Amino acid sequence: MKVLRVRRGGATFYGQLLLEEAAVRCLDRSLGLPDPIPLAELQVLPPVSPSKVVCAAGNFRSRLRELGRDPSDAPMLFLKPPSAVIGSGQGIVLPRAAGRVEAFAELAIVIGRTCRNVAPENVLRCLFGYSCANDVTAGDLRGLDEPLGRAKGFDTFAPIGPWIETTVADPSDLGLRLRINDRLVQEEGTGDMVVGPLALVSFVSSIMTLLPGDVVLSGSPAGGGALSPGDEVRVEIDEVGVLINAVLAEAEAAPLQ
Amino acid sequence: MKVLRVRRGGATFYGQLLLEEAAVRCLDRSLGLPDPIPLAELQVLPPVSPSKVVCAAGNFRSRLRELGRDPSDAPMLFLKPPSAVIGSGQGIVLPRAAGRVEAFAELAIVIGRTCRNVAPENVLRCLFGYSCANDVTAGDLRGLDEPLGRAKGFDTFAPIGPWIETTVADPSDLGLRLRINDRLVQEEGTGDMVVGPLALVSFVSSIMTLLPGDVVLSGSPAGGGALSPGDEVRVEIDEVGVLINAVLAEAEAAPLQ
Repeated sequence: MKVLRVRRGGATFYGQLLLEEAAVRCLDRSLGLPDPIPLAELQVLPPVSPSKVVCAAGNFRSRLRELGRDPSDAPMLFLKPPSAVIGSGQGIVLPRAAGRVEAFAELAIVIGRTCRNVAPENVLRCLFGYSCANDVTAGDLRGLDEPLGRAKGFDTFAPIGPWIETTVADPSDLGLRLRINDRLVQEEGTGDMVVGPLALVSFVSSIMTLLPGDVVLSGSPAGGGALSPGDEVRVEIDEVGVLINAVLAEAEAAPLQ
Repeated sequence: MKVLRVRRGGATFYGQLLLEEAAVRCLDRSLGLPDPIPLAELQVLPPVSPSKVVCAAGNFRSRLRELGRDPSDAPMLFLKPPSAVIGSGQGIVLPRAAGRVEAFAELAIVIGRTCRNVAPENVLRCLFGYSCANDVTAGDLRGLDEPLGRAKGFDTFAPIGPWIETTVADPSDLGLRLRINDRLVQEEGTGDMVVGPLALVSFVSSIMTLLPGDVVLSGSPAGGGALSPGDEVRVEIDEVGVLINAVLAEAEAAPLQ
């Protein structure tokens, strides 16, 4: 099932996407909306409104080879702020102060139930589903910002979407691709992850309580690509979907408040 | 004014602390509670429920000297997850997996208005106030976790409190102390910050949208101290307050879910 987060009037709710009807079936029964609602009558939001976005670094073997590093069964973690989250179709804004900005395709694992210290074999029952994510990064700032709060934290630097896919046969065997315009710049399977999707959620839950809507990002394989204004960047994950974002220059005169 | 975040029945609200009466005056007029409410009738919550906790690293000159580093006008940033936030009087839990855990006293600057790209001279009008914070850190994990998401992100690793002080004469001239039991392990003024409190909020707002209740932590001066079960750790900030937390061992058999 593909689940969208939508707004209609004053209500925000999850709905099942009915692709052929171009409509959504409301999944919140308390709202009393049994009939399919045409997409044209809805505002589609980013599919998650997380309390935290927890990201793994150095968690694909191909990336580690590229960096000349050894794999570790305890991936390095960082957080992206919820203010960075945008959905499919929204623009990635290149900050004037940031220099080179890069895109990295990642699998987003969406939490469905409050959990802490979950054993890997029990992670599935704590999940909502999967989405595509782009770990947008200000590459030039990385060396100046070891803990990555700035390099990874600008507004719009966490595209996630286009929906939450609740049913995936095997999350540890999904093809993952990043395209910038027509150029394929990353292609790898989630089988290349050092710590696979379910073990990664278990690891994160050994540190912090995960809440419904929280997102764990897989890390990214080798490659990645620099972004320029006017680019279209696509994260494709088999069985999950395609996340599409245009790249925009920051307005020349973003006013100081 | 000292502001507490409290719960009473089903309602969560901010209230002005009336210290002499041991009561709170509700600041949310929509709740229709004009009379002081005795503290005994309230559950006191952590004073913030942030969408993000943005932390500066290497932002006190005394700390940089200790590390042999040069000051930078762009401090390194990292995030703590909201799941790590506890209030004064709650326990810091030492994770069994973490090894040595250290405490670091910091000034917490609490945002009052949604803001982005705020000039330093306009930051004051975007603030709610100030609180005390403890940047609890798993020191032994730091080298394994460069971006600090694990070392800084365990549940209970972000004590903030005891309240929000809305009126401080000069946030860049406040004495800051950390005590573990009766031992003074940090003592410095916020005048030692490389990027002062208001300029720091301006810097963070140049990267990410700040929301009401979000918290920016100042960074910590030289010193700091390792924590053991049974310790009492106090962060004291002049004109702001005293944050007190007991230190607990993780339960021997925290069950896997």
